[in-house]
Amino acid sequence: MKFSEAERSAIYRAIHERRDVRRGFVDRPLEDDLLQRLLAAAHSAPSVGFMQPSRFIVVRDLATRRAVHGVFEAANRKAAASYDDGRAKLYSGLKLEGILEAPQNLCVLCDADSARGHGLGRQTMPETALYSSVCAIQNLWLAARSEGVGVGWVSILDPAPICELLHIPDHLTLVAYLCLGYVDQFASEPELERFGWEKRVGLDAVVSYDRYAAEPAR
Amino acid sequence: MKFSEAERSAIYRAIHERRDVRRGFVDRPLEDDLLQRLLAAAHSAPSVGFMQPSRFIVVRDLATRRAVHGVFEAANRKAAASYDDGRAKLYSGLKLEGILEAPQNLCVLCDADSARGHGLGRQTMPETALYSSVCAIQNLWLAARSEGVGVGWVSILDPAPICELLHIPDHLTLVAYLCLGYVDQFASEPELERFGWEKRVGLDAVVSYDRYAAEPAR
Repeated sequence: MKFSEAERSAIYRAIHERRDVRRGFVDRPLEDDLLQRLLAAAHSAPSVGFMQPSRFIVVRDLATRRAVHGVFEAANRKAAASYDDGRAKLYSGLKLEGILEAPQNLCVLCDADSARGHGLGRQTMPETALYSSVCAIQNLWLAARSEGVGVGWVSILDPAPICELLHIPDHLTLVAYLCLGYVDQFASEPELERFGWEKRVGLDAVVSYDRYAAEPAR
Repeated sequence: MKFSEAERSAIYRAIHERRDVRRGFVDRPLEDDLLQRLLAAAHSAPSVGFMQPSRFIVVRDLATRRAVHGVFEAANRKAAASYDDGRAKLYSGLKLEGILEAPQNLCVLCDADSARGHGLGRQTMPETALYSSVCAIQNLWLAARSEGVGVGWVSILDPAPICELLHIPDHLTLVAYLCLGYVDQFASEPELERFGWEKRVGLDAVVSYDRYAAEPAR
């Protein structure tokens, strides 16, 4: 059945008003039925060969989140030290995660070598297993936006100690560590744009036709 | 501003009714303004460090699509030969791409080593650049569903000859090759489930709390 004009607008609204959220999380935990809706949205993402390789750990325990925050801090100190002068100052002023403020975190894993799906679609491009888990994350991110739930992706951390903290077996790959929680508002622009970290590239600069042509600033 | 109940339902509807489409493409090409809306949806996906690394090539030229289809066929023959008996028969009965039926294809690339974003978020997890392009694909996929446009992801191909065909420079990574086109209907289940290639895993089997616990069949 066709989507109505209003339904279509809602999809674009979620896409364009989704933000990476690192601040403003409300203390109130997500209700369990809401959390299940978000996880079901993630789980219904496309997966190569219908292998459904994504695994999810909801992290609410404060001691665990404190330990994860320590792993972030170590990586963040190292990252901060890699920038010179002006940019180092800009970097240190950024808020890059909400691990402790968001009442729940979500660790997204991928069982990339699973026999499920019988290898279909993975023989020439095995990375599509991991990509399936990323599709799951984007589904959850958009669903969350429509529920007034902010999501922030923390990639400034070393996956190895996180896997140890969360008892993750070796055959799983940590794809993402997310912070999730209600927020009162969503910013109108990406935080890194607003604070002058990076400028936006226009759509025209990244699209070409029939053969590669565009070459925006690198 | 909060999403209404109707808006929220539309988001979940797109998520749950999205399909990987390989058949039933209508001959009529997508109007340019629609194509631009879909590309804008992709381009507004989250990107690590706001690096916006995704590049898009819209492939409409038939000779080019024929050549791409040849690349698919070579990989598909090899894949088919890797299965035994019953499964080989099942595999050969599957329709796995719509490169020639869909009036336009879309090649999604990532400039994963770009200096844009100043490396923010990529020092410990550099794979997040590629993951940003996958988020773009999932945005486009959901927007397309709401527009009555089917999307199919073809991963059964060797990226190297595709890059040559489309004049893609070495610094770009081919993330996905998609088929896009209007369809009259969307199937109610994934094709690989319907034809008995793989069974569905329930949500409960893939979610755990505070530490990894679930272990569905591998």
